[in-house]
Amino acid sequence: MNNTHALAEFLAGLRYDDLPPRVVSYTEELFLDWLGSALASQGSHPIPLFERYAARMGPGDGNCQVLVNGTRSSAYFAALVNAASSHLVEQDDLHNSSVFHPATVVFPAALAAAQDLGKSGRELILAAVAGYEAGIRIGEFLGRSHYRIFHTTATVGTLAAAVAVGKLLDFDTARFVNCLGSAGTQAAGLWEFLRDAADSKQLHTAKAAADGLLAAYLTADGLSGAQNILEGEQGLAAGMSRDANPACLVDGLGSRWALTETSFKFHASCRHTHPAADALLALMQREGLNHEQLAKITTRVHQGAIDVLGRVVVPQTVHQGKFSMGTVLGLIAVYGKAGLVEFEQHALSDPRVAAVREKTSMVLDAEVDGAYPQRWLGRVEVLTVGGRRFHGAIDEPKGDPGNGLSRAELEDKFQRLLAFSGARDAEQGGELIAKVWALHANDDVRELI
Amino acid sequence: MNNTHALAEFLAGLRYDDLPPRVVSYTEELFLDWLGSALASQGSHPIPLFERYAARMGPGDGNCQVLVNGTRSSAYFAALVNAASSHLVEQDDLHNSSVFHPATVVFPAALAAAQDLGKSGRELILAAVAGYEAGIRIGEFLGRSHYRIFHTTATVGTLAAAVAVGKLLDFDTARFVNCLGSAGTQAAGLWEFLRDAADSKQLHTAKAAADGLLAAYLTADGLSGAQNILEGEQGLAAGMSRDANPACLVDGLGSRWALTETSFKFHASCRHTHPAADALLALMQREGLNHEQLAKITTRVHQGAIDVLGRVVVPQTVHQGKFSMGTVLGLIAVYGKAGLVEFEQHALSDPRVAAVREKTSMVLDAEVDGAYPQRWLGRVEVLTVGGRRFHGAIDEPKGDPGNGLSRAELEDKFQRLLAFSGARDAEQGGELIAKVWALHANDDVRELI
Repeated sequence: MNNTHALAEFLAGLRYDDLPPRVVSYTEELFLDWLGSALASQGSHPIPLFERYAARMGPGDGNCQVLVNGTRSSAYFAALVNAASSHLVEQDDLHNSSVFHPATVVFPAALAAAQDLGKSGRELILAAVAGYEAGIRIGEFLGRSHYRIFHTTATVGTLAAAVAVGKLLDFDTARFVNCLGSAGTQAAGLWEFLRDAADSKQLHTAKAAADGLLAAYLTADGLSGAQNILEGEQGLAAGMSRDANPACLVDGLGSRWALTETSFKFHASCRHTHPAADALLALMQREGLNHEQLAKITTRVHQGAIDVLGRVVVPQTVHQGKFSMGTVLGLIAVYGKAGLVEFEQHALSDPRVAAVREKTSMVLDAEVDGAYPQRWLGRVEVLTVGGRRFHGAIDEPKGDPGNGLSRAELEDKFQRLLAFSGARDAEQGGELIAKVWALHANDDVRELI
Repeated sequence: MNNTHALAEFLAGLRYDDLPPRVVSYTEELFLDWLGSALASQGSHPIPLFERYAARMGPGDGNCQVLVNGTRSSAYFAALVNAASSHLVEQDDLHNSSVFHPATVVFPAALAAAQDLGKSGRELILAAVAGYEAGIRIGEFLGRSHYRIFHTTATVGTLAAAVAVGKLLDFDTARFVNCLGSAGTQAAGLWEFLRDAADSKQLHTAKAAADGLLAAYLTADGLSGAQNILEGEQGLAAGMSRDANPACLVDGLGSRWALTETSFKFHASCRHTHPAADALLALMQREGLNHEQLAKITTRVHQGAIDVLGRVVVPQTVHQGKFSMGTVLGLIAVYGKAGLVEFEQHALSDPRVAAVREKTSMVLDAEVDGAYPQRWLGRVEVLTVGGRRFHGAIDEPKGDPGNGLSRAELEDKFQRLLAFSGARDAEQGGELIAKVWALHANDDVRELI
């Protein structure tokens, strides 16, 4: 029995009653955070392109909600548009050791299929847990060499989405193996777009969720897939990884709940900037510094941060600014935070932010790199205008499970996300919050949102 | 200016009037051959699964024809189902040096978009030429290391389909670059499924055509993509090839018409079996041997044949039999041909075929491997029951441009493909043939088929 088969057996056997209460409540929190991320992108490029594509290619009606515009479509197109939406403002969750954003691919596929099939909140929660547990382990399996070239949320996301939908379709072990085969052979997504600030990040998540859903529906109807897609000689790891670790695929199945290791994003930027942002903020507060006193900022980072952020020198778009370490630290230094509003209003236009950006550099740090991706350490060195030198360090960025967001903080973030796009007012936001906190008691998710 | 930009500039500038008459007529021949391949799969697993998926997720009507069932849908789903259909019976075309089956991905996307947009036969031909010329060069660029793990028709097919649709959408250079970026970052498809005779081959072509079409439509609406998806540090070659040759991307643009190098399939099996099949047939005819006289058959092949065919020992399905060298040679030895009917009726059940299969082996041959993929040489060694030894050799398998099929032979193949599934009778087949031979004069392809 290979590891894929063992993982499939676990997924097939997973029951709602097996989930610890903390897993259920954490899933609701991840769902709320995802919903806010999706609604925050309403009206922002390139989301309307995906909406128009769905309207042109899909049916005029259906069981499944397109969140940003309130229309209904088939499950395929609801998954497509909702997954594009929820990754745009860079506020969706991240699992550290897999370097994988599960929510933006798992929830769009799971919600679309659950609405299509008329499932309950409990079934949706169980499906999401299955998607997270499988996706995180597959991301860990593919390792750091994969992430250097491939956007793990896109590639692994296809498999995670397929697993979530497969759980809603009540797959047995054999079906899960086939489904992983059909999903894995569709896995795609290259980082090359980052250099040009192109729109591919949304395309990646859209396609991962929709392709995963397609794999699961076709599997349910009888499509077979490779039986060893992950570890086979011509499989995913053979083609797209040089440091794959098969043991990761079955690590702690049934005892380790990887979903609860997922971090909530506090800053509205690429997660690779968060450790340094928190370390700089703590240092400036501790030493009573303001942005004018900063002469030089050196962030000591892991290689992955250089790979993803190293492309951006002077950001040309707000979205690209979220991948600029200097811009993020500039917002932190000038405004004390790097939220959606700071990005939208100040990231490109405030000369004080640009000044900090120009004083910022990244260097590879052996300790930080060695801890990554299990731990995302923040290390900064500051030289002041007056010639003083300070070191800042944090070991758990805000939003990590050990330094998490309370439900009150998550509600506040959710309302800020809704206000950013104007998708809902505070009262409507409050109603959505109440529904999500009661998701475990919901009988039919078709009218959830 | 990188090679991708140069390729895009060529594609944007290509005009119907630039096409030599031989390119136009050859495109019509490739189109007929593709249409027959698609119709031949009517009713065969797993095509109905794709039909049902399209009906479930797509609109109930549309501008675009689903060939195997005569329904209409949106361009996305017509491309999806038609591309699944046309690769099933293993009778669609192949370009040798790129190891890429262009028709099964280019024509479904191009026909669907042309019907959606109400284009003429000339515009469809021009779009197909653009897709072939780009796809073949990208396949050559990615090289043999890519094909070892990745199904080139799936990965490169996404780009080729996108280019064909982009031509129908009248893209300029910048749009073609963006479109290649959005298509290339979706490129996927692993050979792992072959070991299990799984249904992924149809999934691959279906998704390549549909994903390429999606990339082009979103590009037309304003989606940006990576500007150097093929050669960039985190692009397609970086992630999925070890021997990429950038010069291939622009090889002979405007003077070399790679489309006319495409081979028609004569036998109904994987193209990697054809050189040996032709060599054995010629040897047996030359020496007057029958199958009972064969004691041992050794085929001397290129490494790609071993990679693709080496998995299958005893085929479990007809489709898997098409990837079994011994089965193909068994049909050749016993029946003198390996067509659709021979596969369907005899490949798995005739003990004489099985006997030849058990006497057949493949060995790597330096000369054959060195010539590949530019030339597909056939070399076989036969030991007879009486102890005699013979060598057979052919340098151009039947169907190669230098050993091609006449229009009469193509018509005969087309009629046999239609008769195989019963999709059309001979009279209807004749009408379709007449329409395709007049494609260059067609004013509106919406009612073509």
